[in-house]
Amino acid sequence: MDLKSHIARVPDFPHKGVTFWDVSTLLQNADALAYTISALADHYRSQAIDKIIAPESRGFLIGGAIAKELHAGFVLARKPGKLPRKTIREEYALEYGIAALEVHADSIQPGEHVLLFDDVLATGGTANACARLVERQGGEIDDMCFLMDLQYLPKTADLSRFNIFSLLQYTEKDLRHPFDTKPSLFTEIAK
Amino acid sequence: MDLKSHIARVPDFPHKGVTFWDVSTLLQNADALAYTISALADHYRSQAIDKIIAPESRGFLIGGAIAKELHAGFVLARKPGKLPRKTIREEYALEYGIAALEVHADSIQPGEHVLLFDDVLATGGTANACARLVERQGGEIDDMCFLMDLQYLPKTADLSRFNIFSLLQYTEKDLRHPFDTKPSLFTEIAK
Repeated sequence: MDLKSHIARVPDFPHKGVTFWDVSTLLQNADALAYTISALADHYRSQAIDKIIAPESRGFLIGGAIAKELHAGFVLARKPGKLPRKTIREEYALEYGIAALEVHADSIQPGEHVLLFDDVLATGGTANACARLVERQGGEIDDMCFLMDLQYLPKTADLSRFNIFSLLQYTEKDLRHPFDTKPSLFTEIAK
Repeated sequence: MDLKSHIARVPDFPHKGVTFWDVSTLLQNADALAYTISALADHYRSQAIDKIIAPESRGFLIGGAIAKELHAGFVLARKPGKLPRKTIREEYALEYGIAALEVHADSIQPGEHVLLFDDVLATGGTANACARLVERQGGEIDDMCFLMDLQYLPKTADLSRFNIFSLLQYTEKDLRHPFDTKPSLFTEIAK
């Protein structure tokens, strides 16, 4: 399935010069959504995965469905202040400033095998913070999976200790690719 | 399955006098998560559901998995400013102030059958706003489902035109119920 044709490219969102890849158009399509979830889960069916961890909030969507497919539990990595019980926190650098993610302090048991999912791999900071939140609880995290790997962005976090699987790889070429598919997706970007 | 035993009651979060029902402890448990998703999806397998709509952000998690189970698309109802293309917006009253949700203006096609999911039904304002966003696009929404219906709260929105299904119903009795299960969940609430 040509999944890229279901993802809308939105220039200059949320800031000028940034290209936003809008997966909402993929999620809206039942066939594309089912294919995406199955293809990601299929990659791990032979492994014993105890839990999926995914960051707020788009990671929750496909991540929860992957957890169901693999009969795993699900750990929410949330922005500070959202989780009601005792948490641990990891901060990470953004292009401008610092962000942080929290998980409940009892969300992983020592020795559990955890798989990270997020919709987009950009610089790797978010994924690396999630991994540290797993490792600090004694969990094992060897694998990370993504819907999209934005290979044209430099990775600022060192993810070399993980096995990384992405369904779609985006390069400089995709940034230059003309809007030649599903023009109706793009005619209304005048927000 | 006794799902209630997997949900942590957190008093005075996020504000004094409010009881927060923490479903993260259910999500972390693979059996409880799989049971929850299947039980919600089973209720609709005989119906033709084109799309699931769910509000940010906890609704995304189980909602996405229900979409996969029913082979439906998924529509994100997000807080203002998060969606990159042309949107429509519905405002609704909170206890103090106004909140709003947005969906992309091309997220529903006229005549599509849409099912709403959210983890908690409280006053009904969020669910009603989602329904209006469906109806304004010409979608048909007859059904809403929830993990938890907080029946001890007065419904301020009129949801009488919808068929409502909830897996768990919480009454005044649940607010008074002693913490007699899984004490490890509750010993660390001193956040």
